[in-house]
Amino acid sequence: MFKLIKKDEKTKARLGSIETSRGKIDSPFFMPVGTNGTVKSLTFEDLLGFDSQIILSNTYHLFLRPGMDVIRNAGGLHRFINWQRPILTDSGGYQVFSLTKFRKISEEGVEFRSHIDGSMCFFTPEEVIKIEGIIGSDIIMPLDVCAPYPCERKEAELSVSRTYNWARRSKDYFMSSQVDSRAQKLFGIIQGATYKDLRIRSAEEIMSVGFDGYAIGGVSVGEPVEEMFNALNWVMPLLPEDKPRYFMGIGLPDQIVKAVSQGIDMFDTCIPTRYGRHGTALTSKGKYIVRNAEYINSTGPIDENCDCRVCKKYSLSFIRHLLNVGEILGLHMVSYHNVYFYVNLMRRIRAALAEGRFNEFKDKFLAEYGSELK
Amino acid sequence: MFKLIKKDEKTKARLGSIETSRGKIDSPFFMPVGTNGTVKSLTFEDLLGFDSQIILSNTYHLFLRPGMDVIRNAGGLHRFINWQRPILTDSGGYQVFSLTKFRKISEEGVEFRSHIDGSMCFFTPEEVIKIEGIIGSDIIMPLDVCAPYPCERKEAELSVSRTYNWARRSKDYFMSSQVDSRAQKLFGIIQGATYKDLRIRSAEEIMSVGFDGYAIGGVSVGEPVEEMFNALNWVMPLLPEDKPRYFMGIGLPDQIVKAVSQGIDMFDTCIPTRYGRHGTALTSKGKYIVRNAEYINSTGPIDENCDCRVCKKYSLSFIRHLLNVGEILGLHMVSYHNVYFYVNLMRRIRAALAEGRFNEFKDKFLAEYGSELK
Repeated sequence: MFKLIKKDEKTKARLGSIETSRGKIDSPFFMPVGTNGTVKSLTFEDLLGFDSQIILSNTYHLFLRPGMDVIRNAGGLHRFINWQRPILTDSGGYQVFSLTKFRKISEEGVEFRSHIDGSMCFFTPEEVIKIEGIIGSDIIMPLDVCAPYPCERKEAELSVSRTYNWARRSKDYFMSSQVDSRAQKLFGIIQGATYKDLRIRSAEEIMSVGFDGYAIGGVSVGEPVEEMFNALNWVMPLLPEDKPRYFMGIGLPDQIVKAVSQGIDMFDTCIPTRYGRHGTALTSKGKYIVRNAEYINSTGPIDENCDCRVCKKYSLSFIRHLLNVGEILGLHMVSYHNVYFYVNLMRRIRAALAEGRFNEFKDKFLAEYGSELK
Repeated sequence: MFKLIKKDEKTKARLGSIETSRGKIDSPFFMPVGTNGTVKSLTFEDLLGFDSQIILSNTYHLFLRPGMDVIRNAGGLHRFINWQRPILTDSGGYQVFSLTKFRKISEEGVEFRSHIDGSMCFFTPEEVIKIEGIIGSDIIMPLDVCAPYPCERKEAELSVSRTYNWARRSKDYFMSSQVDSRAQKLFGIIQGATYKDLRIRSAEEIMSVGFDGYAIGGVSVGEPVEEMFNALNWVMPLLPEDKPRYFMGIGLPDQIVKAVSQGIDMFDTCIPTRYGRHGTALTSKGKYIVRNAEYINSTGPIDENCDCRVCKKYSLSFIRHLLNVGEILGLHMVSYHNVYFYVNLMRRIRAALAEGRFNEFKDKFLAEYGSELK
């Protein structure tokens, strides 16, 4: 599935590609988040227009609304939303642990109350794989137990052991239920909270089950950035070179560049769309609030170094006005720029890797962005 | 300014064109409403994509936000919003009378409290023309006194006489202040509420001042459809053939087709975008609520007879889901279809007029739409 094209000489960054039944994805890449089957405030024409290779959607959300009957009737998620490129679905483990008021975890699975209508639901590892089969996403994540931050060692241990047991059950169910084993790719998720030995143990356990790719989960749950990179650095040396590596839910632009330099291939985060909806632009020179009064007469673009449709055509002054009067076009424009910035950042990273100048690119990017990361 | 190309033989409909300094507009035409300098939930690329010839914006709203300093700094509204095609601006008379809690009308002008921050403002006919000069719109409407519905005769009389006095002052100020008299076109607005003699008197008074086009105002203020068409029919025989005729704030698709058959050339209404945001689709077979449960598994488009981007690509089932989970893409898709439907309806009307089959088109459209109009 994963083809390693080139290893950077000065960092651990890698240029590669992932083969899916819906086409090849050049790595490292970013997956715009389309929780409900739509990347918030963007059209699919926007995503195709700037050549987003893949989007991410969410099993938990799609299960609740529109529900599996609707998606099955449409012939799967791709047909339902009319997006023919690859889709990765998160299992919803993170959502069950962060969105639902009531949840009861047992070895069997997790019982939870829908955050929409309060109805009781029960997810088992097998059920989640089954749901993702109906969704028909190209890369699927198994149900895991996402530990919070901060987290007592005992809870972190339980998260690791359950995640391992559920990973085995997921793999077993996946292997027995897939008609065509090439149609979907199943990833494993590493947990372990902020404990080095638990992270290492989880990585070894998950690798022993054997997956098409490995994800570092239980990060971006409120921990300091240093802890987030610890979770990464502890397990990266253990992961096989011939499988893609996914840093789940990460991160700000400088964190992505840093994580690429540590060997990560795949990213997702709702930051560009969430920041966009709140009028915060992410640019090559860091982030700023477009609504600030100082931009009232700024006739220049959101980002002078950006060649997106919005930056080529519309002024900060106009976009600020749109946000100020509560017009959808304003939050669309900032979201569009932000998602473009992420997708294009990955393109720039891949070009730098291909041309053997990634380390210089990284240093220059982090300096210009005003990052505290090294 | 107005060129009459062809008169329909069986109705009073006319095919024509309006010349502005930013290009020719084929008539009859519809102006998507961009109150705050944006057609709600659409991009300018959308509008250009389906060839909207013109948009409408609002003096009152732009005066309050972003304010004239910002628009002057940008070099006018066209540059501010980066839309190079014609723009018509309403004067804000209607808004002053319908949106503001406090207003005090005198012969001099109207004092009102901003619906945004409660600050006191004062509009005179001269001030409004001056503001529209800064905005730089291609067709400008003067300040008028919009009578409500229902309206006592005495109030309607005062509305007619003030509108006449203000029309003269607007014309005088316009003639003395315009550097290039061809750059902007000034229309006159006819008032008179639901009184036939007052409508006729207003039309004669406004025509005596002399304008580039004539608008029937004080309609779509809550009156029955019959009264709305009365206001139209009473004055249409009086209006000169060589000037465009604008039915302000009208209407539903069948009302537009009907008004074209009575000789109207120009339309605007926020119906397609407002209905779109609330999930109501306007189609060749009438309107319906996309969120209704019956469409949960409808794999067909919003409108089987529509060739817009949304109808060609996305199912009712998906759009219903998007509206149901509160995603912007859902209301964008319905709004996009609705505005396209209006713009395309005018294109179909013009084609029918050009080919001498407008009367048949009208009868077929009204029947298929399920209209009660004849």
